[in-house]
Amino acid sequence: MNLLLFSTQDYTAENRVEIRCPEKLAHIADILKKGQGDCLKAGVLQGRLGTATIESFSREKAVLSVNLDSDPPEAPALTLVCALPRPKVFRRILFGATCLGVKKFHFIKTWRVDKSYWNSPLLLDTSTHTIFLEALAQCADTIMPQLSFHRLFKPFVEDILPDISQSTRKLLAHPYAQNPFPFNINQAATLVLGPEGGFIPFEIDLLEKGGFLPVSAGRRILSVENAVVSLIPRLYP
Amino acid sequence: MNLLLFSTQDYTAENRVEIRCPEKLAHIADILKKGQGDCLKAGVLQGRLGTATIESFSREKAVLSVNLDSDPPEAPALTLVCALPRPKVFRRILFGATCLGVKKFHFIKTWRVDKSYWNSPLLLDTSTHTIFLEALAQCADTIMPQLSFHRLFKPFVEDILPDISQSTRKLLAHPYAQNPFPFNINQAATLVLGPEGGFIPFEIDLLEKGGFLPVSAGRRILSVENAVVSLIPRLYP
Repeated sequence: MNLLLFSTQDYTAENRVEIRCPEKLAHIADILKKGQGDCLKAGVLQGRLGTATIESFSREKAVLSVNLDSDPPEAPALTLVCALPRPKVFRRILFGATCLGVKKFHFIKTWRVDKSYWNSPLLLDTSTHTIFLEALAQCADTIMPQLSFHRLFKPFVEDILPDISQSTRKLLAHPYAQNPFPFNINQAATLVLGPEGGFIPFEIDLLEKGGFLPVSAGRRILSVENAVVSLIPRLYP
Repeated sequence: MNLLLFSTQDYTAENRVEIRCPEKLAHIADILKKGQGDCLKAGVLQGRLGTATIESFSREKAVLSVNLDSDPPEAPALTLVCALPRPKVFRRILFGATCLGVKKFHFIKTWRVDKSYWNSPLLLDTSTHTIFLEALAQCADTIMPQLSFHRLFKPFVEDILPDISQSTRKLLAHPYAQNPFPFNINQAATLVLGPEGGFIPFEIDLLEKGGFLPVSAGRRILSVENAVVSLIPRLYP
């Protein structure tokens, strides 16, 4: 936890915050080894960040005086569209991409997405919310990402993706593509990633018809989770 | 598995290979759904890669005729020096960095490395060898990385690191550094990464004395595993 995240409801007065979450209290005491008088990096969800001084600390409650003097880090203007992976990988993609600043996620059905993946409890709002909070606390950001699921490929690509990707650079990560993956693009982008095993030709055709350019970052084939984390910084270093 | 890796011992004649490993046979049949007459991407460990045609296939043995017509993908001229992380993260770093082509790994003791990490069975040669094989089969490479462990920080930095990093660009990844993380450096580099929680000031001083420049990739603080995967492509896109 590199940032103590709290919400507007935790304010008890101006610049005064009470933390009662047992996990956060345990983390402050046991991992960060901080107590009364110590300073922490802190931020309010959807708002600014800065420092918090611990005025009093117990296992039930921490009282903090906060000084939030800076804006959250800039987010890349990227929309990530990803074939729904197996649950463990889903978690890592959400966590890793959120740490890199991605704020817009769309997970979609494709031919090679196993039906069982849609039943994972990790897809519930409460689970993804927790993953997002962990990632924001890791990367020291306060802005919650948005997440949608789309269970029908063709309607998504034909009816929803055009809106999502409007006025953005449309990129389709594809290990065997001829076009090189672009670097430092300085514009908004929509990046589509396939499942392990890749898109089927019909899916690639449909995405290309929608204006998406297949691009490859080289001969090495990365797992989806590593592809996400290695590709985003190339677009926005 | 994007590449069927075999070793020189698997040759029974020129361009003829027998696979008897039950996991590989199961993967070919059940995941890739390939059998007699089908083609696979294949490569020989430490050598070339190309295609293999399945001449005969059973649950005990596959006989392949191979045509290895290309060299393995280029590897970035990078030596990775990393504080030993907890075992789960160690596995992911090895896997992820190997997929990105790293061939030289050094895991070291630092102040914030938990002593228990050194007892993990994942550190055994047999375990790391398996992780490397999995990663090579994922990224379609044949060249085995090399791995060393160093259990004393000061002797490593003073006596071993100068040799390892000789004539390379010496970089110390540090979230709070002023210098920006370089891009597309076109030269050999040694990249040092700290543990979760970072290096202590004494360690940073010693590395700086050894010529390492602290560099930061931005305000966001990444977990070590995501830092590795996001930083390497910036050096060698």
